[in-house]
Amino acid sequence: MNLAVGKSWSPPYMRPILYLVGGMLVALSVAMVVPAAVDAVVGNPDWKAFALGSAITFVSGVALVRGARCRLSGGLTIRQAFLLTPMSWMSVAVFGAIPLYLSDYAQLRDSLTNAVFESVSGLTTTGATVIIGLEAAPPGVLLWRAILQWIGGIGIIATVIAILPALGVGGMQLFRTESSDRSEKVMPRVREIATAITLIYTGFTVVCGGAYWLAGMSPFDALAHALTTISTAGFSTYDASLGHFTNPAIHWIAIAGMIAGAMPFVLYVRLLHGQRDSLRDSQPRVFLVFLAVVIGVMALWLVVTGRYGAADAVRHAAFNVVAVTTTTGFAISDYGAWGNVAVGVFFALMFTGGCTGSTTGGIKVYRYQVMAVMLRGHFLRLLFPRGVFLRTYGGRLLPDDVIGSVVVFFSLYFMCYGALTVALMGLDLDFLTSASAAVSALSNIGPGLGPIVGPGPASNFGTLPDAAKWMLCFGMLLGRLELFTVLILFFPQFWKG
Amino acid sequence: MNLAVGKSWSPPYMRPILYLVGGMLVALSVAMVVPAAVDAVVGNPDWKAFALGSAITFVSGVALVRGARCRLSGGLTIRQAFLLTPMSWMSVAVFGAIPLYLSDYAQLRDSLTNAVFESVSGLTTTGATVIIGLEAAPPGVLLWRAILQWIGGIGIIATVIAILPALGVGGMQLFRTESSDRSEKVMPRVREIATAITLIYTGFTVVCGGAYWLAGMSPFDALAHALTTISTAGFSTYDASLGHFTNPAIHWIAIAGMIAGAMPFVLYVRLLHGQRDSLRDSQPRVFLVFLAVVIGVMALWLVVTGRYGAADAVRHAAFNVVAVTTTTGFAISDYGAWGNVAVGVFFALMFTGGCTGSTTGGIKVYRYQVMAVMLRGHFLRLLFPRGVFLRTYGGRLLPDDVIGSVVVFFSLYFMCYGALTVALMGLDLDFLTSASAAVSALSNIGPGLGPIVGPGPASNFGTLPDAAKWMLCFGMLLGRLELFTVLILFFPQFWKG
Repeated sequence: MNLAVGKSWSPPYMRPILYLVGGMLVALSVAMVVPAAVDAVVGNPDWKAFALGSAITFVSGVALVRGARCRLSGGLTIRQAFLLTPMSWMSVAVFGAIPLYLSDYAQLRDSLTNAVFESVSGLTTTGATVIIGLEAAPPGVLLWRAILQWIGGIGIIATVIAILPALGVGGMQLFRTESSDRSEKVMPRVREIATAITLIYTGFTVVCGGAYWLAGMSPFDALAHALTTISTAGFSTYDASLGHFTNPAIHWIAIAGMIAGAMPFVLYVRLLHGQRDSLRDSQPRVFLVFLAVVIGVMALWLVVTGRYGAADAVRHAAFNVVAVTTTTGFAISDYGAWGNVAVGVFFALMFTGGCTGSTTGGIKVYRYQVMAVMLRGHFLRLLFPRGVFLRTYGGRLLPDDVIGSVVVFFSLYFMCYGALTVALMGLDLDFLTSASAAVSALSNIGPGLGPIVGPGPASNFGTLPDAAKWMLCFGMLLGRLELFTVLILFFPQFWKG
Repeated sequence: MNLAVGKSWSPPYMRPILYLVGGMLVALSVAMVVPAAVDAVVGNPDWKAFALGSAITFVSGVALVRGARCRLSGGLTIRQAFLLTPMSWMSVAVFGAIPLYLSDYAQLRDSLTNAVFESVSGLTTTGATVIIGLEAAPPGVLLWRAILQWIGGIGIIATVIAILPALGVGGMQLFRTESSDRSEKVMPRVREIATAITLIYTGFTVVCGGAYWLAGMSPFDALAHALTTISTAGFSTYDASLGHFTNPAIHWIAIAGMIAGAMPFVLYVRLLHGQRDSLRDSQPRVFLVFLAVVIGVMALWLVVTGRYGAADAVRHAAFNVVAVTTTTGFAISDYGAWGNVAVGVFFALMFTGGCTGSTTGGIKVYRYQVMAVMLRGHFLRLLFPRGVFLRTYGGRLLPDDVIGSVVVFFSLYFMCYGALTVALMGLDLDFLTSASAAVSALSNIGPGLGPIVGPGPASNFGTLPDAAKWMLCFGMLLGRLELFTVLILFFPQFWKG
């Protein structure tokens, strides 16, 4: 890190972080031009909010870049990388809320909490909304929500590929790119991979949007939903989510899009490079088999209990199961009203998530696989205390530190989940609402369960007390950034020395 | 192990297990004489059920001891110890149900499920009951329930001290008695410690019963409640539990008794031997401070919300918090009706438990302490990848395998908890009932939360479907035996070779 030090208002180690955050804000300000233009075209006065928001964000970004007084030439230290991750996400979320708060749309304009919640829920690809009557919301607001989710989707892939493995967080060191051994310097030759993934991500979005449009969506709806499908994020432009559309083709396109977004994006890059042996990675296979089994059982149950005919049962089961498991949070039916059995299954699904390196949140398949390997090894060692047992994943040895990180992640996830649930109940929210909203936030899903935050068109996070919304904002960021990167900031030693 | 092999119907490795189980059944048959005598004295026809049950149990026990055709002269192998633990507990629970099923008491006589549930809930010191109208239940049945809990309490202390540490289960190897290194042979000089603990346990029971009696309980009630207080088990002879008694002194005696039962019993032995330095063990201290803080906050909240005056608030908070945290499950008020805030707090308390080596169930304080040490070490290593950090507990180094076992226990506990919750919801039970009954069973507490299984006098496990009762029976045994000893039986390698 070459620092051109002048008089400065910030400690030296903060400068590269401020520099990078500033750069992201400049990019964000450019993105805000899109909804400004759309609102201007349709003659909605909100174009001013987005233009002003863009200007504020741009100026702030430039100020940070210049104020940082440094040029980024090396990598970041471990501590800097830990700081960068939550700071950049929080900054983008806060600045993303500005145009919403400045807009003419009463539900966001009149409540800073609502504006921030919607922006955090967007950027973290959660998809929980405080807006009631999305149909009547102005197009700029709807588009901006979708764009935030799309940015969040590519943002988390970048974070997971570039930053987290080098930090050794949550067992993701296994997904480190080959060349990078654990060292004090972070970020190796990530740029090429990032470019390829951005192209693939954009390509998927275009294909998904085109398909939506061909299946009968308006161009605007097709764009808005494509942005939130590939990012497994889940904002819709209708209170009934994709249940608004009656054409089954649209639902199947969404299912395909959500699954595409739930795969490890590095896999696509490898396949494009002709590395067909990367198909041997067991994570996507396990994920797809798991989905198929759950969908099959759920569809059968829907038929047996007389709720749907066979074809509809398969579609409703497939859509909602995929939507929850991939942490997207779309819905085409109020599965919360299918009774306790369904509530139990969907509640359990909220703890799964898709593949590591995808846009999905939650615990994710890979960690369950490592847990299974670890548990098997543990039981073997209980039985044969003097035996030596190799613990492998995909034919390769699983290092102890990877297993340790995954197990710690599990424990920490459930502790955070429990704490968030109890904190929400401390605000006098009922058990199902609190428990499901907590996991929904932590896993970046969107809807919870129960009458208040459930998947039904009448359910909405808007009626929650403000304190609950702030807690959930924290939970969404905590989950999105894989717990450690946020929690480590509360660790006293982080700030010492 | 010296085996005097003859023609036998069981594989050789089963023989010492059958021998030991047989011995336990003989002891159990002796215990059944007590309720038989009581029923005979008061002229209740149930004395026949207990006499017959005792005879069946005695004959079965003798048959096993003789049929095993072996004399116990060595120790057990690891595999045998793993088999012994669940088999002995299950056998005692099943035979303990026989007199209940044979009794004249309709609620148990007419349902094998109910009789087994009550016996399992008793022996595992859970204290969930299927009986409605305990006031009208025959004295023999009431006494037998209490005796089962008392046996379960001393039984788990023995299991935890003698068997689990040598098996390396759940991090309890830290509590191994000094001399015993991990080896293929289990059970060192445990007999002296066991005798001392049995005397202390009996002494506490006598003191507790005497105090109850002096405070105004009938001799019968005093005995029945003393048996279920020291064992932190929680069966009462009234639907309203200890809420039946209005004398605050009785409640404070129960609080003291539950806390006494939640301490590591080895600590008492050490103190009796004049080892005052064992007071430096941090687990009891952390436990008491935690209790004091939670009780203080809860009492304050009860006063502020206008539910009780100061003195009553402290008593109600202290009693119910101690009852849940020590996994006893007594209640003097329907705290489930105190609103969502209280439900949240009590739900969280259900995941704590008392000290290791006590009669309490659940995760227990020690494991939380190890988790804290582990998390601190993990965060330090994230920050300083090249640093070396010692992880200590009570001034001694925490071995990696202890930390590993504790973390695995945590993960496994939450997996079992989630699976049991979802399984109960699969029977169409509501979320709060399922989630709270699941943790209540796994942690051997007793009541759950909500209108069906909550702590109120009208709540009762009797109305649950039979399938739910069997699932909960499994959960109670699973939790009582610290998960691993039961789950390992489902591990294919256990049965190979």
